[in-house]
Amino acid sequence: MKKILGAGILFLSLTSFAQTKEDSIQFSKISTEILNKGKSYYELRDLTKNIGHRLSGSEAYEKSVKWAEQKLQEAGADKVWLQEVMIPVWERGKESLYIKSNTGKWTKLKMLSLGNSEGTRGKDVSGEIIMVKSFAEYEKLNPDQVKDKIVFFNYPFSQSYVQTFRGYSDASAYRSTAASLTAQKGGKFAIVRSLSSAFDDVPHTGAMRYKDDVTKIPAVAIGNTTADKLENLLKSQKITAKLNSNCGMKGEKLSHSVIGEITGKKDQSVIVVGGHLDSWDVGEGAHDDGTGIVQSIEVLRTFKNLGIKNNHTIRVVCFANEENGVKGGIQYGKTAKETREKHLFALESDAGGFSPRGIALEMDDAKINQIKTWIPLFLPYGAYDFDGRYSGTDIYPLHDMGVPTAELAPDSQRYFDIHHTEEDTFEKVNRRELLLGATVMTQMIYMIDQNW
Amino acid sequence: MKKILGAGILFLSLTSFAQTKEDSIQFSKISTEILNKGKSYYELRDLTKNIGHRLSGSEAYEKSVKWAEQKLQEAGADKVWLQEVMIPVWERGKESLYIKSNTGKWTKLKMLSLGNSEGTRGKDVSGEIIMVKSFAEYEKLNPDQVKDKIVFFNYPFSQSYVQTFRGYSDASAYRSTAASLTAQKGGKFAIVRSLSSAFDDVPHTGAMRYKDDVTKIPAVAIGNTTADKLENLLKSQKITAKLNSNCGMKGEKLSHSVIGEITGKKDQSVIVVGGHLDSWDVGEGAHDDGTGIVQSIEVLRTFKNLGIKNNHTIRVVCFANEENGVKGGIQYGKTAKETREKHLFALESDAGGFSPRGIALEMDDAKINQIKTWIPLFLPYGAYDFDGRYSGTDIYPLHDMGVPTAELAPDSQRYFDIHHTEEDTFEKVNRRELLLGATVMTQMIYMIDQNW
Repeated sequence: MKKILGAGILFLSLTSFAQTKEDSIQFSKISTEILNKGKSYYELRDLTKNIGHRLSGSEAYEKSVKWAEQKLQEAGADKVWLQEVMIPVWERGKESLYIKSNTGKWTKLKMLSLGNSEGTRGKDVSGEIIMVKSFAEYEKLNPDQVKDKIVFFNYPFSQSYVQTFRGYSDASAYRSTAASLTAQKGGKFAIVRSLSSAFDDVPHTGAMRYKDDVTKIPAVAIGNTTADKLENLLKSQKITAKLNSNCGMKGEKLSHSVIGEITGKKDQSVIVVGGHLDSWDVGEGAHDDGTGIVQSIEVLRTFKNLGIKNNHTIRVVCFANEENGVKGGIQYGKTAKETREKHLFALESDAGGFSPRGIALEMDDAKINQIKTWIPLFLPYGAYDFDGRYSGTDIYPLHDMGVPTAELAPDSQRYFDIHHTEEDTFEKVNRRELLLGATVMTQMIYMIDQNW
Repeated sequence: MKKILGAGILFLSLTSFAQTKEDSIQFSKISTEILNKGKSYYELRDLTKNIGHRLSGSEAYEKSVKWAEQKLQEAGADKVWLQEVMIPVWERGKESLYIKSNTGKWTKLKMLSLGNSEGTRGKDVSGEIIMVKSFAEYEKLNPDQVKDKIVFFNYPFSQSYVQTFRGYSDASAYRSTAASLTAQKGGKFAIVRSLSSAFDDVPHTGAMRYKDDVTKIPAVAIGNTTADKLENLLKSQKITAKLNSNCGMKGEKLSHSVIGEITGKKDQSVIVVGGHLDSWDVGEGAHDDGTGIVQSIEVLRTFKNLGIKNNHTIRVVCFANEENGVKGGIQYGKTAKETREKHLFALESDAGGFSPRGIALEMDDAKINQIKTWIPLFLPYGAYDFDGRYSGTDIYPLHDMGVPTAELAPDSQRYFDIHHTEEDTFEKVNRRELLLGATVMTQMIYMIDQNW
C-alpha cells in the first residue's frame, strides 16, 4: 500500500509538473500577445473620446451599447446579443451652489449633485450651514438645531489605509445617507465632503439613496480643498448656502446589457468575465469602468487569436446601470436563474485599469485553496495577492446563486483621486498597466476553463 | 539535551513572535505617519517646480544642493554636510534635426542629442540616412556602405517583458554605442530610436559614451512615432538628414553630493539611504530621481518624528552626477574606503516614485534569506518581491567594497514612458504612491537597523 501510494504521488507530481510547465508557457503566450498586440487601449480611447461619459438612460449610453456589440463581434465572438434591462433614469441638469459669509458677497463653489439625488426644481434653496465631522457628532444635534439648516458632513477620507478601497468604504455611508439623515431632522439639504484620496478641489459624485419615509431633499458633494476652506470659514462666522439644481429621477426606461461569447468546445457551462458599460455623467468613465469593459473584450479576443480551445463557454458581459441601480447585474442573475444555465465562475474588473496585484476571490475554501496553488504561475505578472474576499458589484447576484465570483485587484493608490469625477479620463490610463490587467484576467479565465 | 533544545526552540519562537508583533506595530506606525504627515510630495513639488531639471554643472544643480541641505536640516538631521565631487560638465545648447525626402522640402524632427555626445559645433552636417534594425544588421554593412552616411539605429523597445527595466536593458546598448559604431565605419552621425515604452513622439535623452580611438561624432534620439514615420519613408525613397547642434563636454567642475544623518545610539556604523540629486536637462527630473531624494529625506524625518532610537547611524546621501558620470557615487565609495567608516547597508531609490512592489537585494545568501523572513511584515504594504538581484547605480562602489546593497523596486509600467524626457514632471507623480514607497523604505531601514 505504501509503495503504491508512493508511486501514485510520484505520478501525480510528474503530471502536475508537466501541467505547470504547459500552463506557464500558455501564460507567457497570453502575456506576449496582449502586451504586443492588445487592442484594449485603443478601444478605450475610442470609447472615452468618441462616446465619453455614458450614464444609464443617456443617448451616449445607447451609443456605447452599439459600440460594445461591434467590438465583441470584431473580437471574434461566436454570438453577440443584447439583454433587456429596465433602468432608472436620473438626470443632472443645471446646478449651482453659492455661499455667503460676513462680507455679504456670494461665492460660487465647485460642486456636483450626488447621483439619484432630487434637486431644488430650479428654485433657490438657502439656509445657514452647520458642520459635523462625523455621524456621532450629528446624532447629538436636536432637530431644533438642524431645522431649516444646511448640514455639511465633513468626514475626511482616511489616508491611513494602504488599500484605498478601505478608506472609501469607511467614508461611503456619508455619501449615501447624508440627505436622509438631514431630512429626518428637518434640514433643507446636505453637503458632503467628497470621497476622495486627493487633496484637490475636484468634487466626486456617486450614488446616494433615500431611506423610506423621508423627504427627498438634495445632497451635493464638494471637493476637499473647498471643504477645508468652508470648515475654516465656519470657525469664525455664520455661512449661508444657496443651492439651485434641476437633478432628479425621471422614471424608468428600457435599455440593455451587451453580451458576447465564444462557445465551449466541451460543454456550455458559462464562465463570465465583465465590467459595467455605464458611467457617471462626468469625465469619460475611463477607469470606471471603461477599462473593465475593454479588458474583458481583450480576454475573448486573446482566446480567439491564440486559438485556445476553451472547454466551457467564455462570456463577456458589459453590464448596464452599475452606477445607479445595478439593474444590469440583477437582470443577468435573474435570467441565469430562469434559464438554469450553469455558471462555473464570474470575474469582474471594476477597480480601475491599474497594474494588477492579484484577484479577490469569493467562493468556498476548497476552490480558493486550489486557485492559491496557481500563485507561482501568476507571480511573474505581478499578481501575488489572492487574499481579498470580495467580488464585483454586477456579479453579486450570481454570487448569491452560489456561483464562485472574483474581481481583478489592481493597484489602488490612484483610483479614488479621480473616481466619479471630471478627471476620470483616458489620459489617466496607462497602456501597459491596462494591458497587464487584461493579461492576468485572461490567465485566470484560462486556468478556470482548464481546471473546473 | 533534547529537553533543553526543545525549551530553547520554544523560547526562540516566543521571542520571535513577540518581536514580529512589535515590528508589525512599528511598521504600522511608520505607514500611518508617512501616509498622513509625509512631506515628500510637497518637497518634490518645490524641487521640481522651483528648481526644475538640474543637470550636473548647471546653476540649477547648485541650487538643488542648497535646497537638499536645507531640507535635511528641516527633517531633523543631527549633521548635514557637502561632499566635494569633481563632475564632468556637459551642455546641450541649441540643436535641430531636419530631413529631406524626394519632395525636396526640409521637415523638422523632434529630437534630443544624447547626453555626453559631441555636437556639430553649430555647423550643418548632412548626409543620407541608412537604417538598421539591429546590431546584427549593422555588422553586415561594409565601411563603404556607411561612409559619410547617417546611421539610424531603429531597434524597438521590447513590450514583451513584464518588468520594463528588462526592455530598457535590452535596448540600452543602442543608445550607448550607436555613435562609436557609426564612427568606426566612417558615418557622420547616428540617430537612435528612443528607449521608450510609450508609443508617442517624445524623444528620450540619456548617457552615451565614446569608445577609445573613435571620432567623436554626434548621436541624437528621436521619438517612437517619428522613428516609425522615418522607417516608412525609407522604404520608398532616399532621405537626407541635416543636424546642427552645439552640445559637448565642457571640462570638469567642483560640485557636491549632499549628506545628512542621524547619529547611531549604539554605534556609528552607517546605513545609507539615498537617490541622485542631479537629473537630465529636460523635464523636471521628477521620477528620475527627485522622488528618490525626497523619499530618502522622508525616511530620516520619520525616524525623528516617531522618536525611533536608531542603533546605527542613518545617513541620507543625495548623490551628485548619477546621470552622466556617477562621480558622486564613486567619490562616496572612495571616501568611505579612505575613512574606513563601517557601512552596514545601502538602499537606493532610483526607479521612480511608483507604488512599491518590493526591494531588490544584492548581498550574500544568508542576508537575503534573513530579509526574506521579514516578507510577511511587508506584504500589507504591497511589497512582496524580494527576488531582484541588483541595486542602485550610485551605491555600486559600496557594493564593490562588500557592503550589502539594495534598491526600491516600484511598479515599472510607467517609468520608461517618461524617463529622460520633457514629460518627467511633478504631475506624473502620485502622492500616495510616492509616500507608500517612502514607507517601505523606512520599514526596511528600520529592520536593518534593529537586526544587523
